[in-house]
Amino acid sequence: MSPTRRPARLSNLGEFQLIQSIPRQFSTQGFHPTVGTGDDAAVLPPSPLQQVVISTDLLVEDVHFTRKAATFYDIGYKAAAANLSDIAAMGATPTAIFVAIALPPSLTYEDWQEFYRGLAIPCKRHKVQLLGGDTSSSPSSLFIAITITGQVNSGHILTRQGAKVGDHIYVSGTLGDSAAGLAYLKKYKRPPKPSTLSKPMKYLVQRHLQPTARIALGQLLASQLYASAAMDLSDGLSGDLRHLCRQSQVGALIHSGQIPMSKHMQSYAKRIRANPLQWSLHGGEDYELLFTIPPKGQQELEKKAKTCRIPITRIGIIQPKRFGIRIEQGDNTQEMLLQQAYEHFSP
Amino acid sequence: MSPTRRPARLSNLGEFQLIQSIPRQFSTQGFHPTVGTGDDAAVLPPSPLQQVVISTDLLVEDVHFTRKAATFYDIGYKAAAANLSDIAAMGATPTAIFVAIALPPSLTYEDWQEFYRGLAIPCKRHKVQLLGGDTSSSPSSLFIAITITGQVNSGHILTRQGAKVGDHIYVSGTLGDSAAGLAYLKKYKRPPKPSTLSKPMKYLVQRHLQPTARIALGQLLASQLYASAAMDLSDGLSGDLRHLCRQSQVGALIHSGQIPMSKHMQSYAKRIRANPLQWSLHGGEDYELLFTIPPKGQQELEKKAKTCRIPITRIGIIQPKRFGIRIEQGDNTQEMLLQQAYEHFSP
Repeated sequence: MSPTRRPARLSNLGEFQLIQSIPRQFSTQGFHPTVGTGDDAAVLPPSPLQQVVISTDLLVEDVHFTRKAATFYDIGYKAAAANLSDIAAMGATPTAIFVAIALPPSLTYEDWQEFYRGLAIPCKRHKVQLLGGDTSSSPSSLFIAITITGQVNSGHILTRQGAKVGDHIYVSGTLGDSAAGLAYLKKYKRPPKPSTLSKPMKYLVQRHLQPTARIALGQLLASQLYASAAMDLSDGLSGDLRHLCRQSQVGALIHSGQIPMSKHMQSYAKRIRANPLQWSLHGGEDYELLFTIPPKGQQELEKKAKTCRIPITRIGIIQPKRFGIRIEQGDNTQEMLLQQAYEHFSP
Repeated sequence: MSPTRRPARLSNLGEFQLIQSIPRQFSTQGFHPTVGTGDDAAVLPPSPLQQVVISTDLLVEDVHFTRKAATFYDIGYKAAAANLSDIAAMGATPTAIFVAIALPPSLTYEDWQEFYRGLAIPCKRHKVQLLGGDTSSSPSSLFIAITITGQVNSGHILTRQGAKVGDHIYVSGTLGDSAAGLAYLKKYKRPPKPSTLSKPMKYLVQRHLQPTARIALGQLLASQLYASAAMDLSDGLSGDLRHLCRQSQVGALIHSGQIPMSKHMQSYAKRIRANPLQWSLHGGEDYELLFTIPPKGQQELEKKAKTCRIPITRIGIIQPKRFGIRIEQGDNTQEMLLQQAYEHFSP
């Protein structure tokens, strides 16, 4: 777009025109719906041996994101990744998304296109089709509700309910990177250009703005029935572990020294005198998987994960419910792991 | 609630507490999900012979509704009905809904409960379960995005695409009632109590605030493959017929004298010197079905509909695409039927 061209106002376009101009970067491979966009509803193909998995996520401007720290491309990218992560947590293969979006008058046509361009990237990677949705104006804030569907072989679904006493607790990747990226972004009044950032800061910012859903890991855990329970880390380990334990009716012991943290996160924490353990325990939006593995499956899983180059780390063990949820410090003392609410952007 | 009790602020409750306190009026009959609320995603049961139908609808405060004209009960009721109508239009049986809702600070806990109480009524009637969603705060307006799923026998789906030249065009019920109810409600600064309204006005207001999804008719049309195309009337006949014709690559001729209108609507139009035909052609949110029937199936369908006590009316005939979309007036003159945008509430 030339800088002198006036941005097109979305309010000048009808809903039909808007839908017609959604970028065509979405996948048309893999999953073949019977009826897609343009009808009253989308129709998924029959699946005799597979079950349909559905999840809905809400993203509200100035609650979950602000334009100060994220471009519309980032907002779209993260919206897709967060939804894909829910499908990963069920061990399913994502198939389609549905986007309900309410557009405030301040949004330009270019912003809207950027949003869909970002949204399409993780979708295309996983052959996820855009099958429907709804578009409307909004009096003030941008509001995005995404529904995602997936497929999983019957009987192979990962839930939060199956963790048993003695199961090992694992997480994928490193924790706290997203919270560190967020802490850094809060200093900005508009999204920084990635090219202006140092490599470590670019890494942390990317981990916050463009997280990766652990689809392959979820499928690995589900296909061989390795995991007894699984969920994704969206609210932070301290809160999410609590959800898993509640659903499984168990307690847990976590070893603080075993929590995986990236070098970039640790050095940034040191630099700004923040506590890296706080970020990794209570920071949300890492979109890594938290899962439990019965002792007999442990060795085989670790081997498989290594072959597939998926980083996983054992961080603790499931305990009886009465044990509560505790964390063991480096000095072998244990204390209750309390949940700290994860704050998204504070505008 | 005692009038002296201070309304509970939603912001004082966490999302988990809120979800736990969603009214339990939703159905637990009929459809049995493998995994429901409380996990990362809901899991639908396998359906070897049936296909899953999905639709998403967005409702934004001061765009689709205002608190001046609708109670939270009404808003919930209509949100459910509008979504059920999309499932009806596909000839499917509704199974589950997912509610993404962003709550502004002005909303009380009681408002929120009323919303779910209203939402549950049409859901319970059709044995639709609440299987998931997402709840968040909102800086200003109330946003609601509902995703609904349904099931339909493979090969029996109604779409907008199959209308052929010579097919008869039908609608269910009466058209324009919702627009008349809206015109009346616009005079109010807060929702009128139904008990204060005359019988005709109560009827029109109810038709606007608590529409009925034509589930049984959709199923009838789909089960016997009567209809060549179908959709629901949410934007008004003039706009929706255009969508159907576009998808089917055909034109249409409508007879103005055959458009079904209620007595209550006609007498209210007369009283306020409004044009009842305008309401029935361009008024949205009737949530009746618009469908096309090949000549050979016409008689049998009319008989069946009569037996099932579903009012349907033939209003025109499908024409070649080049004919365009026309309306025949009482004096046998034809003119092009132009779409007039349906305006929801103007706050």
